[in-house]
Amino acid sequence: MAMTRTAKELAESIGAKLEGDAAAEIRGVAAPERAGPHDLIYVEAAKHAERAAASAALCVVADDGTALGGKTVLRHKQPKLAFAKAAALLLERAPIASGVHQTAIVAPLTRLSPGVSIGPYAVIGEDVHIGSGTQIGAHAVIGAGCWIGDNCRIHPRVTLYAGVRTGHRVEIHSGAVIGADGFGYAFGEGRYWKFPQAGIVEIGDDVEIGANTTIDRGSLDDTRVGDGVKLDNLVQIGHNCHIGAHTVMASQVGFSGSCVIGKNVVVGGQAGFGEHCRLEDGAVIGGQSGVLGGKTIRSGQTVWGTPARSLDKFKEQFVWQARLPELAERIKKLEEKAAR
Amino acid sequence: MAMTRTAKELAESIGAKLEGDAAAEIRGVAAPERAGPHDLIYVEAAKHAERAAASAALCVVADDGTALGGKTVLRHKQPKLAFAKAAALLLERAPIASGVHQTAIVAPLTRLSPGVSIGPYAVIGEDVHIGSGTQIGAHAVIGAGCWIGDNCRIHPRVTLYAGVRTGHRVEIHSGAVIGADGFGYAFGEGRYWKFPQAGIVEIGDDVEIGANTTIDRGSLDDTRVGDGVKLDNLVQIGHNCHIGAHTVMASQVGFSGSCVIGKNVVVGGQAGFGEHCRLEDGAVIGGQSGVLGGKTIRSGQTVWGTPARSLDKFKEQFVWQARLPELAERIKKLEEKAAR
Amino acid sequence: MAMTRTAKELAESIGAKLEGDAAAEIRGVAAPERAGPHDLIYVEAAKHAERAAASAALCVVADDGTALGGKTVLRHKQPKLAFAKAAALLLERAPIASGVHQTAIVAPLTRLSPGVSIGPYAVIGEDVHIGSGTQIGAHAVIGAGCWIGDNCRIHPRVTLYAGVRTGHRVEIHSGAVIGADGFGYAFGEGRYWKFPQAGIVEIGDDVEIGANTTIDRGSLDDTRVGDGVKLDNLVQIGHNCHIGAHTVMASQVGFSGSCVIGKNVVVGGQAGFGEHCRLEDGAVIGGQSGVLGGKTIRSGQTVWGTPARSLDKFKEQFVWQARLPELAERIKKLEEKAAR
Repeated sequence: MAMTRTAKELAESIGAKLEGDAAAEIRGVAAPERAGPHDLIYVEAAKHAERAAASAALCVVADDGTALGGKTVLRHKQPKLAFAKAAALLLERAPIASGVHQTAIVAPLTRLSPGVSIGPYAVIGEDVHIGSGTQIGAHAVIGAGCWIGDNCRIHPRVTLYAGVRTGHRVEIHSGAVIGADGFGYAFGEGRYWKFPQAGIVEIGDDVEIGANTTIDRGSLDDTRVGDGVKLDNLVQIGHNCHIGAHTVMASQVGFSGSCVIGKNVVVGGQAGFGEHCRLEDGAVIGGQSGVLGGKTIRSGQTVWGTPARSLDKFKEQFVWQARLPELAERIKKLEEKAAR
Repeated sequence: MAMTRTAKELAESIGAKLEGDAAAEIRGVAAPERAGPHDLIYVEAAKHAERAAASAALCVVADDGTALGGKTVLRHKQPKLAFAKAAALLLERAPIASGVHQTAIVAPLTRLSPGVSIGPYAVIGEDVHIGSGTQIGAHAVIGAGCWIGDNCRIHPRVTLYAGVRTGHRVEIHSGAVIGADGFGYAFGEGRYWKFPQAGIVEIGDDVEIGANTTIDRGSLDDTRVGDGVKLDNLVQIGHNCHIGAHTVMASQVGFSGSCVIGKNVVVGGQAGFGEHCRLEDGAVIGGQSGVLGGKTIRSGQTVWGTPARSLDKFKEQFVWQARLPELAERIKKLEEKAAR
Repeated sequence: MAMTRTAKELAESIGAKLEGDAAAEIRGVAAPERAGPHDLIYVEAAKHAERAAASAALCVVADDGTALGGKTVLRHKQPKLAFAKAAALLLERAPIASGVHQTAIVAPLTRLSPGVSIGPYAVIGEDVHIGSGTQIGAHAVIGAGCWIGDNCRIHPRVTLYAGVRTGHRVEIHSGAVIGADGFGYAFGEGRYWKFPQAGIVEIGDDVEIGANTTIDRGSLDDTRVGDGVKLDNLVQIGHNCHIGAHTVMASQVGFSGSCVIGKNVVVGGQAGFGEHCRLEDGAVIGGQSGVLGGKTIRSGQTVWGTPARSLDKFKEQFVWQARLPELAERIKKLEEKAAR
């Protein structure tokens, strides 16, 4: 799955400055401890230079300040970023499907663009569009009227309910369910009545969605996931949520319905959000935080805890909480003094 | 997917009082901002009357106190409820399957009632009963001995382990797993031994189960989900739990084994429960709350936090927590005074 | 599914001392209240002896201190453990598949050992090894190059991405996804770039993995799950995590990447862990706890809360938190006194 490149070719592709053997052949990537001579490695900071020096790898991505005698070095200000770009060139992504498998069931009006691959037993509904170069894994179920962009990677056992739309280069991992009914009811006469879940889900370009993550369709509005958004595994996105571009959410995050999430927001694992929350651009939400329904987290603010408050406030309160026994003791002493 | 009704027909069906054009044709539902002339909209309160007034929709569901000049109005005390009922008449649910697909594998002793539909590649085990009008989606796996009621909607890629029983009109979303082994072991000799998970799962009528939700089979008892229960996505119900009728749970809620949950309980998202919890009828559990094993939440009580306490207490403590730095300062001042 | 044994046979097999009718026939297990005469029951402690006495069951597992007149008793120091072992002998596990179904797609170079069963529509990739006696359920998708040990039980609708390796006697429940890409990106130029996720997942012997649980493949390292580990449903294990033998995790636990978890660790439901956490052998993590990235929980320590602290400390702080209104009142009184 690896494609050989020379150090020179790589340096040019990733915008790095080359030091050393321009013809060095690189065939893969690895951690320093596991690398062979032809694997590319990287070091983030000078303090990790020893790990790189001790590695069998001949070629290292590093920043300017890291001395690496004897290695061919690709110098870049952001070594991890440069390494990630190099890896994308060196490692071929494992194919999800090749060709349209004879057991795949493709409804008559479906429009398959050139270069589409569909795995065994996948089921593609009526009037679906699948863009060129897109791969659909085994057992994926694509509902009627879905529109899937170019060069997407839909892994095995993904469900898209009817009417889901995705941009290009979208990757959806196994078990994810996109477009199921949102959780909406009206209570009356002693029972819950299903509120209509008639909207769709619209997903931008370059989005990655983790395994077993669920994104509900809109009720009377649509659910929207912006360009470049990355969602980890087991995340829940409620109906009508709008997620801005380049926002990332770690595993097991849960959003209730109708939340508006800005661009470049970072949400830590297991954080939870009530209905109609608003996270402005660049907000950072600590892991396990809870944001009450209707609340707004301001642009650039970092919050933590349940209910979520500013990180500084949380830390200060936490310190005092730990000192509560001491405070209580001091009150007791004051009372004793006062009684005398 | 929409079925046209006149305003008069709708008003009669949902028990609303008609004002305006009895013959107005209604063909769908929408949010006020997205509605066309023939979409039904609703407003919950007078303060939203402007949104409705500005809408292209000709027909509105509203309560008595909301003035809506120029519109045909269906008056009802609970507009959202009435709207939900109207939507159920206007919107045909998307079919999950039509007919029994030739690739569906149905074991010889399975009993399919009239009007059953089964999607491509679904696998139905021995001795299963499927009630009339029930639809089973593509790739669903129904284990041996399951009993599924009438007019159920089992979406694609649902797993029912052997012996699961459901009532009528049950809807189960994609990726849900019902009846997997509970998490029970006996520890001894340095390892865990599997405790028998020999019970079943019994699900009542009118239950809706979200995408990727898991409900474990009983160990020596059964797991029971009462009539009208609604579970959101990614919820976990442990073995032997009993859930009373018309209880609702938001996404990512987790119940350990052997919890007894009353009727009309409301559980907020991401709340967690230790073994042998007891939630009495009408209890309300705030999002992310944690209830310790063996604890009881009393009927009608609202609790929050971990460990869960009454909402009033939680709020009072939270306010004082925020004032901890101030309290500490006041103690310091008292100490200084006392030292003088 | 039950296999008859005599009381004498069972006693010998599980290492119990027999009292009463050696020839008593036992055909299954049950809770005392649901047992028939030929079901085996157990009581954990003398206080439950009445439940056993009132049961129709003729044969009981109990410790030495529990009087059970009229019953045949299998005496064992750890009744629950002995009962679990007896149940394993009495109850045949429901078969997941029998034979290799004609609709299963098995790639040409796959090596199926004797006695392998594969259910309908399962898809087995190139160069997979499946050990003898292993059962693979319907719709399972096993990626290229996977190595699966002997006597494993892979339930329907499980996904193993390419290159996953499991030991023997591993049970994986429906909907689990093993080996999906970890959540790793490098941020630069306004967007996230995928960091290589090129490692594998290695699973030991006797591991059980719950429904819809996700275990990500390593990035430059591997993800490893030790022998005897038990993971409940909807658990998330991030890339590069290493889990020691006989560690158990309740439902909805989430680990970020590169955590090192010792042996015999117990993790309560919904607990969450930042990157590079270290849980030493025997650590106990309370439900919903949050351990910050990079933190270590010491061997044998029990922690709770977010951020996690020792259980004693948590309890002490919690008590004082509840007394905050009282402390504030006492401060107020002291201030009034001082003002006089």
